[in-house]
Amino acid sequence: MHRTKVRIVEDALDANNTIARANRDDFDRHRVSVVNLMSAPGAGKTTLLERALATPLDGVRVGVLEGDVQGSFDSDRLASLHIPVTQLNTDPGFGGECHLDANMVRSALPALPLDEIDLLVIENVGNLVCPAEFRVGEDARAMVCSVTEGEDKPLKYPLMFRTCELVVVNKIDLLPHLEFDLDKFLYHLDQVHPGVERMLVSARTGEGVGAWRDWLSAVAARETALA
Amino acid sequence: MHRTKVRIVEDALDANNTIARANRDDFDRHRVSVVNLMSAPGAGKTTLLERALATPLDGVRVGVLEGDVQGSFDSDRLASLHIPVTQLNTDPGFGGECHLDANMVRSALPALPLDEIDLLVIENVGNLVCPAEFRVGEDARAMVCSVTEGEDKPLKYPLMFRTCELVVVNKIDLLPHLEFDLDKFLYHLDQVHPGVERMLVSARTGEGVGAWRDWLSAVAARETALA
Repeated sequence: MHRTKVRIVEDALDANNTIARANRDDFDRHRVSVVNLMSAPGAGKTTLLERALATPLDGVRVGVLEGDVQGSFDSDRLASLHIPVTQLNTDPGFGGECHLDANMVRSALPALPLDEIDLLVIENVGNLVCPAEFRVGEDARAMVCSVTEGEDKPLKYPLMFRTCELVVVNKIDLLPHLEFDLDKFLYHLDQVHPGVERMLVSARTGEGVGAWRDWLSAVAARETALA
Repeated sequence: MHRTKVRIVEDALDANNTIARANRDDFDRHRVSVVNLMSAPGAGKTTLLERALATPLDGVRVGVLEGDVQGSFDSDRLASLHIPVTQLNTDPGFGGECHLDANMVRSALPALPLDEIDLLVIENVGNLVCPAEFRVGEDARAMVCSVTEGEDKPLKYPLMFRTCELVVVNKIDLLPHLEFDLDKFLYHLDQVHPGVERMLVSARTGEGVGAWRDWLSAVAARETALA
């Protein structure tokens, strides 16, 4: 009697994860590391990328996939850096999807120059809720949180803060002008994601951007080590 | 031969709108005006309400329905104002819903003291995308946009800016410390919603909060005029 062994996939019903794994396989084949970069609207994702990539990363060729509901404002800004930037708009959906999912990213793969880059940064739609729910095939998740948003954000959007391995605290140049209590924020952060890596940055002044560049390079090196 | 005339409802398939109308009917029966207040995370909705309601509005009894993914931080803050505050959490859904819909608001109706208030402010989940897609039975929609979020937000989240009849531009006390170009922001706003009412406010210093209070009173008066 023949028996066929069917491997049980724990979340077989999750089509998004299945497609995310297919993306992951494609990225691996091209030896591309992928960062899923998330934040609330206006926290400074694009400015942080502009700052970090104004000077090329040592030995790391970077590409960016820009997720937006509408328009190409961010990709226009990044295009001046002379790195490959691909725009992905979610607005064909009802009112515009509030996040990227694995299938949207998959639809962008043919437009991405995967053989010419080592690191792909996917700038997600500005939103602290749903982007955290959808894997897209990334190696690492990072989020940007601006000090203008208040100390309570980790407690109010815990999944987002819990799902990221790096929290970039941005706009610290504004701290003297705010009532933001940084210690309280970090205490809340440790409540939802104890010990998560964090860095204090000002995309405007450049403070801390070196650490952000180093982190991007380190993610790129993860893949290089495998290759 | 008997004929039954079936009235065609344009968006009969839209269950949300059907429930929103049911909510609307209940609010009307109790002569309660309703504001749906939306913004990105950390734009200052709760602080604006704290400021506006620290002193009672003339002849208008206000209640607040707080929509959050998790926690009761905002309703705890508002409770000190001695107004009725009801908490609505969206986290029983997958990862937490990123918006309020009409059915969620409907589920909160029994907990709302509709006979004891004239105006209900529904503080939506912090998000610039999906909350704009779901009517909940409100009379008016207002949004808060912080100057720390950048001038491009109307262009990147056009549905939100288009669907609100009032745009409150908050945190103007920070303008001297930002590179935010207010004229450019207002130009972008008029591109997506020409002539929409707007007010410049600082919830922190109290600047412009009088206009915000007047607007809330005016919305409350709409219903009073009908009653």
